[in-house]
This record gives sequence, C-alpha cells and structure tokens, in this order.
Amino acid sequence: MAKTDPIRETDDAARSLARDLIRNAEHGALATLRGGKPVVTRVALAPDGADLLTLVSDLAPHTEAMRAAPDVSLLIGEPGKGDPLAHPRITLFGRAGFTDKTRLRDTYLAHQPKAQLYYDFADFHLVRITVTGADLNGGFGKAYRLTPDDLA
Amino acid sequence: MAKTDPIRETDDAARSLARDLIRNAEHGALATLRGGKPVVTRVALAPDGADLLTLVSDLAPHTEAMRAAPDVSLLIGEPGKGDPLAHPRITLFGRAGFTDKTRLRDTYLAHQPKAQLYYDFADFHLVRITVTGADLNGGFGKAYRLTPDDLA
Repeated sequence: MAKTDPIRETDDAARSLARDLIRNAEHGALATLRGGKPVVTRVALAPDGADLLTLVSDLAPHTEAMRAAPDVSLLIGEPGKGDPLAHPRITLFGRAGFTDKTRLRDTYLAHQPKAQLYYDFADFHLVRITVTGADLNGGFGKAYRLTPDDLA
Repeated sequence: MAKTDPIRETDDAARSLARDLIRNAEHGALATLRGGKPVVTRVALAPDGADLLTLVSDLAPHTEAMRAAPDVSLLIGEPGKGDPLAHPRITLFGRAGFTDKTRLRDTYLAHQPKAQLYYDFADFHLVRITVTGADLNGGFGKAYRLTPDDLA
C-alpha cells in the first residue's frame, strides 16, 4: 500500500509557530556524531536572527564532535502536561561554526544571563548554528518541512 | 597543556540519580542517523527495567532511521528554572530493536496512559532501546560515565 505523505503544505501559522519556538528557546537537545554514531546532549541556546548561538565547554564531548563534523541537529520545544507527543516541537538541521565570542557577548547574555558567570572562561566557546532546514511537528498529524526562508 | 579529565569516579549517588532519571522519564530526545547525518526528534518513553520502550509511527522519520541504523542516543531529564545546564540529565547510548507490541501493552500504557488512543494502530510500532552505556551530567562539573550494570 502507498504510504500517505504526512507533510502538510507550509502556511503562515506553521511559519509563525516555528519562529516562536526558535525565538523563545532557552535550551535544546543537540545531536552530533561521535565515531560515526549519533549522540544527543543538552545545550543552552540564544537566538540570533534565524540562527542559534550556544556556549560550549571544552570539557563537553559535543564541542570536539562539532569541530570534527559540523552537521548537527537541534530539537527545540518543551512538552507540557499530558501526552508528550501532543506538544509542538521543531527539529532543526544546521551547520555548526565556531564564532567570535567577544562580539556576541551582549546578544548571548541578554538571553542567557546566568552564563555571565563563565562566559569569559577560556575553555568556553561560542558556536553559531546556521539553520539549513527544519521539520516542524505541531502535534499529532501536523508535520511541516520548513526552509530557512520560512524561519527568517 | 594537558586537559583535566572531567569524568568523576562513579559512586552510588550517581547511580541512584541515573536510575531515577530513567525510571521517571516520560519523553526524551532521540538521536538517529539520516543519510549519515544526525537527527534529533522527540519520543515518548516508558521504562522497562534498565531498557526504554518507545511507541513510534511509520509517519515519523526516526522509525525508518532506526530500521536502517539501530545505534541511537537518548537524552533524558528536564531542566527547571534558571541556567538550563545546572539541571541533571543523562545521555544514553543504545541499540534500537523492534519488539512485541502486544506482549508489552500493559507495561507501556501503565507509563503512557494517553497512548491507549493509538497504541493498537497498525502503523505504530514498539521499539526497545537496550542501553549500552551512558554519560550522566549532574550539573556543572558533575560528569560520570556509566555502564549498563550501573543502571540495572
């Protein structure tokens, strides 16, 4: 039997939901590769336009992983009560690049004020995740595939 | 300069924290591979001993991904208020295997009662994630590497 395509046509409501999830993100689940296998870890996030910034430590394995293989994925959107699959979330696909920590200090700390305690430590680095696409899941049966233009 | 090993020696407090995170998990972030790149999606979870069960739909891309490449990773543990990195979480490494949905019905639904609405649908499958190792992060500077025995 043919499988029905579960992806809906992108509309303004989907774009708006996706942008809200990104704009309000304080943390996410970051998938990287370690020895060719997927690894998922928590990272703190700050939005910068349609990109995400994250401050990572040399002690965290995802930092080395992103240096070696910059293709990453990021899950954003927290479930509330009840069925965890009924709540909106977005899977972002992107490229991780180490960027200028000094220039983006205010941008990052405006969204992550607690990070000022360690922002300037030499073993913490700022990474920009440039989003190349996204799968939005607005709840059961509400799947959308979004482009960078949809999120900008 | 030599980098200090950030991993602490595993103790009973770390084992107990890890087991609590797994036992109470209602959802997690699942990392799989799609075309050789990491992808992270939300899944609902129910513990079964030291393993995790998840009910997945044919319409979700992680279902096909796990059939093709069973090595997965799962992030469990929700942040509360304040710095998202100050809250405990665990990264599990494991192998995904499609398993007997009928036999495990009661086990899964005892933990995920809302899923009874779609548990018996033919396009939903039950997957067992057998844990092969874990990175526990109990908050800043509290990193542990755990074995399956630590979690059992």
